[in-house]
Amino acid sequence: MVNPLFLPELREMLATDNETEMREFCETLHPARTADFMEGLSPEEAWRLLSFTDEDTREEIFGYFPHEAQVEILESQPVTEVAALVAELAPDDRVDMLAGVEEEIVGSILELLPAEERRDILRLSAYAEGTAGAIMTTDFAKLAESLTVREALNELSQEADELETIYYLYVVDDQSHLRGLVSARQLVEAFRKPNTMLSELMETELLTASVQEDQEEVARKVARLDLLAIPVVDEELRLVGIITHDDVIDVVREEATEDAHRIAAVAPLSQGYLQTGLFTLSWKRGMWLTILFVAALLTASALRRYETPLEMWTWLVLFIPLVISSGGNTGSQSSTLIITALSTGDIKLSDWLRIVKREFLVGLLLGSFLGAISYGTAFLLAPNPRAALVLPATVLLVVLSGAMIGSVLPMIFKRIGWDPAMMSAPCVAGIIDILGIVIYMNVALLILPKILGV
Amino acid sequence: MVNPLFLPELREMLATDNETEMREFCETLHPARTADFMEGLSPEEAWRLLSFTDEDTREEIFGYFPHEAQVEILESQPVTEVAALVAELAPDDRVDMLAGVEEEIVGSILELLPAEERRDILRLSAYAEGTAGAIMTTDFAKLAESLTVREALNELSQEADELETIYYLYVVDDQSHLRGLVSARQLVEAFRKPNTMLSELMETELLTASVQEDQEEVARKVARLDLLAIPVVDEELRLVGIITHDDVIDVVREEATEDAHRIAAVAPLSQGYLQTGLFTLSWKRGMWLTILFVAALLTASALRRYETPLEMWTWLVLFIPLVISSGGNTGSQSSTLIITALSTGDIKLSDWLRIVKREFLVGLLLGSFLGAISYGTAFLLAPNPRAALVLPATVLLVVLSGAMIGSVLPMIFKRIGWDPAMMSAPCVAGIIDILGIVIYMNVALLILPKILGV
Repeated sequence: MVNPLFLPELREMLATDNETEMREFCETLHPARTADFMEGLSPEEAWRLLSFTDEDTREEIFGYFPHEAQVEILESQPVTEVAALVAELAPDDRVDMLAGVEEEIVGSILELLPAEERRDILRLSAYAEGTAGAIMTTDFAKLAESLTVREALNELSQEADELETIYYLYVVDDQSHLRGLVSARQLVEAFRKPNTMLSELMETELLTASVQEDQEEVARKVARLDLLAIPVVDEELRLVGIITHDDVIDVVREEATEDAHRIAAVAPLSQGYLQTGLFTLSWKRGMWLTILFVAALLTASALRRYETPLEMWTWLVLFIPLVISSGGNTGSQSSTLIITALSTGDIKLSDWLRIVKREFLVGLLLGSFLGAISYGTAFLLAPNPRAALVLPATVLLVVLSGAMIGSVLPMIFKRIGWDPAMMSAPCVAGIIDILGIVIYMNVALLILPKILGV
Repeated sequence: MVNPLFLPELREMLATDNETEMREFCETLHPARTADFMEGLSPEEAWRLLSFTDEDTREEIFGYFPHEAQVEILESQPVTEVAALVAELAPDDRVDMLAGVEEEIVGSILELLPAEERRDILRLSAYAEGTAGAIMTTDFAKLAESLTVREALNELSQEADELETIYYLYVVDDQSHLRGLVSARQLVEAFRKPNTMLSELMETELLTASVQEDQEEVARKVARLDLLAIPVVDEELRLVGIITHDDVIDVVREEATEDAHRIAAVAPLSQGYLQTGLFTLSWKRGMWLTILFVAALLTASALRRYETPLEMWTWLVLFIPLVISSGGNTGSQSSTLIITALSTGDIKLSDWLRIVKREFLVGLLLGSFLGAISYGTAFLLAPNPRAALVLPATVLLVVLSGAMIGSVLPMIFKRIGWDPAMMSAPCVAGIIDILGIVIYMNVALLILPKILGV
């Protein structure tokens, strides 16, 4: 939501140094909406506007800025000014943000932070992108199991505003090993028995994620169990962080977008479309495009083997694009359906026989229908009505092959442990292009000599 | 996760009527894992196994069964047995589930439910699929603003186990109009001041969804503000339900899958791949496939206009599939990148000029590279090296057009209010197929007569 209408007013306030109005602007709305309204201001303007409100609000609004706007502000302002802000941001968000900031500036900011925050940033940024460690936060409620409900509520009420979630309280021993979980729901339920010990309430059958685990796997666990957060443990089973529901939504969205890109033969971008450099973008598209292109080059040599029939029956040439694209389109429908169903868990590899049968029948239906349509046009362009039969026969076989290859290949890739989303697009397209031509020419060679004579 | 290894043991327990073991199986693990382990049992077996545990556990495990398994159980067991279970399920989940059950059986179940639950089911099932009303739940904490923190905690501690979330408490007036929100976090923070009134604590600047609002829009709001839940209000601004974070994850996943299907020219399926009937599946694919097919038929008439050059220079025919597919692949890369970036909010329509410039440069780079590769093969098949120049020139122009059309069309569709995911696939493919042929033939007609003579 860009709000260009609001910008002149904000700039007017800044120009006239209207302190009251600027403070009011920062504090009246939800910080996310304030952040939206500020889109379009320069980093300097945004920073000056934020200086009119208190630290907490400033940090909250800043937290809702898009990534690149945050980086621009950090890079344009003196480090002494921004360090305090960085100290206040949520641990997981600030690590993501600092990854985009020039290394030298990050160094200067780190120097100005309290030792504990600095260590936290360095530790979190050590985890590889795409792992649980990289998206977890370290602001969570850790309590000793000897506490009572009343003591726990008391302790929480002091810490609450610094924690990312207070809805799950993690019970740990002296060495930070995770012992159990008490939900705020359980605390509230036990409110009338305030002397109950946490150890009596806590659940000990916990689902955890390990720091090295793939974020997609973690998201699947959280979504399956409708959790608010999942605890993350290191190799020694010490509790090192938690991943909250809002980060899971981001992961689900990110992974779905990456799958869509892979299906369209684009290697996943690690940043947004506009943030990705031109050469990176070209490279991530170029490598798959080149593979597809080389596969398509093979169609030229396939066609070359059939130069004689093509010269004899030149009207066949007219339908080459049609044959190629009907196979390709059916194949991409099938592979997309299978890839998405595999990744949402909607189908399993053990369903393969059912899937192959379905695709065979669907391919038969679609192929017959499209074949019938193609006959209408072929009838007009072929030398006689019986010769035109080459088209429906070819379309039926090609559509059927498209459905088969498009459904079987992703399952094979999944089975051997390759990413079906990434591998299927080029393979399905490459195979079906060549197969389409082979089918077309062989159907023609089978039917036409009998009808037209050689 | 199918666990076929576990099934024989479960069947053994059932055969030997081993009550202790069956109860233990139901109660030891997290209900979601128990449900996973039971996959593969017949509805009768599953229901009998569940009869060995208490009502609450039974309902929890049942809630984690896949949709179709739930429906099978409801349809196979006497309604008097299952009605109690239905009464206990979360309001939003049971409405989704009952939508799959035979109408007659639903009628009998409804008759056996308490009046309040029956009304709730009928009201929720009246909302159209895809709206906020259809995914909201009606189990949430509604409190009067005159309560103190202590009274609120007391009331909550009595109701907690029936509520879907206790983390947001909604403050309403006598007519159920939404007045404000108190988070459990605020209640806990105020724990040391138990006489504070809710009206002093509550936030009144609330983001709400209306019952008719599109679920995708609601999911975007919740994700943007990292909310745990969003209140849903009717036309008279009365609070009628809430949508919780776990349902938002489902919506995000569902919408992403639908987008991927639309990009691959499949009309979104309302059920899973295996649950969709064969004819529905064929229809949802067939309608778009037919549109693509008719567009491809037009390539035949486009080619027909160039029969003379094709008969004169037959080696040009060999590269028709290559030209078509390089345009199509580039176009689908661009349109997928733009569609996903638009739907995640990564780019906005106001960025159009930057996007067009980027795609132009990327198209130029990719086209030059692929053109250079194509020259290698064309060199071998064309009558002379200069004639082979037709290929790189064509590939450059076609790839460039693919990038332009693939990026501009989705933005135009978005601008005029059509779904870019749905419209782009057939339009981009149709246009680029024909344009590819026109470019190819015209480049040939421009270059070849000078080199080879007519």
